Amino acid sequence: MPWNNLSRRKRQVLEGAFWSHGSSRQGLATSLGFSRSKANGLVSELVEQGLIEESGHRPSTGGRRPEALRLHRDLGLVAGVDLGATSLDIALLKPDMSVVGRHAEAADVREGPAVVLSRVRACLKELMRQHRAEGRLLAIGMGVPGPVNFGIGQLVAPPLMPGWDSFSIRDYMRDIAPAPCYVDNDVNLMALGVLWRQRRQHRNFLVVKVGTGIGCGVICNGELYRGQTGSAGDIGHICVDENGPQCTCGSRGCVEAMAAAPAIARMGTEAATSGESPFLADWLSRNGTLTAEAVGAASRAGDAAADRIIARAGGLIGQMLASVVNFFNPSHVFIGGGVASLGPLFFAAIRQRVHQRSPALSIRHLEIASLPFVGDTGLIGAGVLAVREALRDGEVYP
Amino acid sequence: MPWNNLSRRKRQVLEGAFWSHGSSRQGLATSLGFSRSKANGLVSELVEQGLIEESGHRPSTGGRRPEALRLHRDLGLVAGVDLGATSLDIALLKPDMSVVGRHAEAADVREGPAVVLSRVRACLKELMRQHRAEGRLLAIGMGVPGPVNFGIGQLVAPPLMPGWDSFSIRDYMRDIAPAPCYVDNDVNLMALGVLWRQRRQHRNFLVVKVGTGIGCGVICNGELYRGQTGSAGDIGHICVDENGPQCTCGSRGCVEAMAAAPAIARMGTEAATSGESPFLADWLSRNGTLTAEAVGAASRAGDAAADRIIARAGGLIGQMLASVVNFFNPSHVFIGGGVASLGPLFFAAIRQRVHQRSPALSIRHLEIASLPFVGDTGLIGAGVLAVREALRDGEVYP
Repeated sequence: MPWNNLSRRKRQVLEGAFWSHGSSRQGLATSLGFSRSKANGLVSELVEQGLIEESGHRPSTGGRRPEALRLHRDLGLVAGVDLGATSLDIALLKPDMSVVGRHAEAADVREGPAVVLSRVRACLKELMRQHRAEGRLLAIGMGVPGPVNFGIGQLVAPPLMPGWDSFSIRDYMRDIAPAPCYVDNDVNLMALGVLWRQRRQHRNFLVVKVGTGIGCGVICNGELYRGQTGSAGDIGHICVDENGPQCTCGSRGCVEAMAAAPAIARMGTEAATSGESPFLADWLSRNGTLTAEAVGAASRAGDAAADRIIARAGGLIGQMLASVVNFFNPSHVFIGGGVASLGPLFFAAIRQRVHQRSPALSIRHLEIASLPFVGDTGLIGAGVLAVREALRDGEVYP
Repeated sequence: MPWNNLSRRKRQVLEGAFWSHGSSRQGLATSLGFSRSKANGLVSELVEQGLIEESGHRPSTGGRRPEALRLHRDLGLVAGVDLGATSLDIALLKPDMSVVGRHAEAADVREGPAVVLSRVRACLKELMRQHRAEGRLLAIGMGVPGPVNFGIGQLVAPPLMPGWDSFSIRDYMRDIAPAPCYVDNDVNLMALGVLWRQRRQHRNFLVVKVGTGIGCGVICNGELYRGQTGSAGDIGHICVDENGPQCTCGSRGCVEAMAAAPAIARMGTEAATSGESPFLADWLSRNGTLTAEAVGAASRAGDAAADRIIARAGGLIGQMLASVVNFFNPSHVFIGGGVASLGPLFFAAIRQRVHQRSPALSIRHLEIASLPFVGDTGLIGAGVLAVREALRDGEVYP
């Protein structure tokens, strides 16, 4: 690492510059609790060492044009890997999180770590070759669709990923590149991506992903919170109906079993076959199967049954979120994932239920909104993880 | 404040010594991320300035006997005030949280801030006179049974405390003593008390109080977490039954309405009048009214109806806690408050429901136990708040 023999304070300045990307020396000094002269001195040395650079893009508030500080573009590159249940996205990023190159392809995590990670390896090597990144890779950040024991970089009993339990992705990836690999849950990385893009402006918020499953990334006091054993934000199995249907986890009435994409598709199929929704019946006969997207399309076409399904799913998710909001009192709940594209009706149902079920104080300033910066937030989050952990670790690689 | 013109680093050492009470220089250096020589130097200066003292009570692990560091006993005193719905406890504490003097009396917060706080004022003055504390009081910490906007020291729409809404306790208390007053929710202070007594050993845990209401203090990454608007841990109004009875908050089926002390008393009264419980019927006829304690006594006497009531209340609380545990993944849930004294059956019901409803990963290392260090934890927490905030603020008072 280029920052290997730096003092603790200089590392703090580097991390401060990374998070605030574009702040002034004064801003950096304030956020780090350093005196202005101390911060000035440290920044000057880091600029001289080629670790921080100044650019003049920050708008002035009068007087001398303030410089905008960031990690130096030539420090090296990081790789962000976003592994979904059915997709693989890889990006090479500069230290300012701008994308140098990227690659996307279909993947199936059920094929197991050997198959999937050899694709990750091949694609990453090819990307590095194309962009002449060999020898410049600082670290790899990877998001996976399951619970991760972050300290050891292993998945723990991931329901969507049979064969990956206790597999050490981190150790496997050591072979690919002489750079440390950090692995985390995909929703945690979405939360980290939002935190970075907002320059840590919001300090207590949730990023909820509603797709095949339901998960949540928790930002607490401006930091990603993983919980005692790495399962914080595991909200998919919160019960919303004691007598609800059985979930894959063995319990009854989990919100994931009743309101995630498969449940919405199931309700849509019922509406199609019962004759309640001509639109969905038509869709089903043409396609042989129904998805949550089809229910969204039906709703947009004015189908009342689809509207009811969406309102029901949103209401159940809102009921679960009300418990979480009562407990955690966040400023924002950002909702992403495929199901979030069902639109305003879905969000209205969520908001209504949360407001119904939460004391005045905890929702006084609460915003429930769709995920900002949708594109690449997972990949950016993976890049942020790579930079942040590498800066803190200072792990030495040959 | 004796530490008013100290550098940031020295303040960090002071706070480190306060939290680790009795750690060695080496331990302090490690916990603060300082080099050993840096920590040594800072400690020596602080010892010379009379802010830190060394005592020889720490057991040696061989070699030179390590000194145990703590804030100097003669730094001054802090006051801890624990205001309950029906009680007032005040203590004068040394910086090592040992109690110099204390006072307890009945109080009724419904009489409003003017009446209650004038008692606080009178009792505190009397305590200070008895212990010759005038001129030595560094800060006051106060716990109150309602939601607090911590930044401004005001209660916000407290359901048990009509007349206190938006009343600035902090401003009122400025008159009493030339020391800053910090106000927080009582359960938050219990959590802070546990955190201090455990020397921050556990970093992610909950302290749940079940009494007239149900509340929770949240420790996250070794710090008290208050949420965006101060209402974090407000778990009493989490819904456990969509069709449950109406709560004072207006919603239906809140856990507080169904499983706190008044609900247990109500279920006990029903069991008494229905003839289901001869023990409780007898109690009711002798006392004219039933409390949660009576249900506990009936259970200890082998009354089956009382057992069912306790199991039901515990099950409902466990159902609510399962949602919280899923989301927060704490290492411990400590349960205190009057209802916690219902005993092992109550805890068994809670544990069973949490384990039923939580994924394996989130409960792998979870402990649900009664509150450790029961006595004075609220008062100690108030003292900890006073020292911690005063150290960080460095607010200057004449």
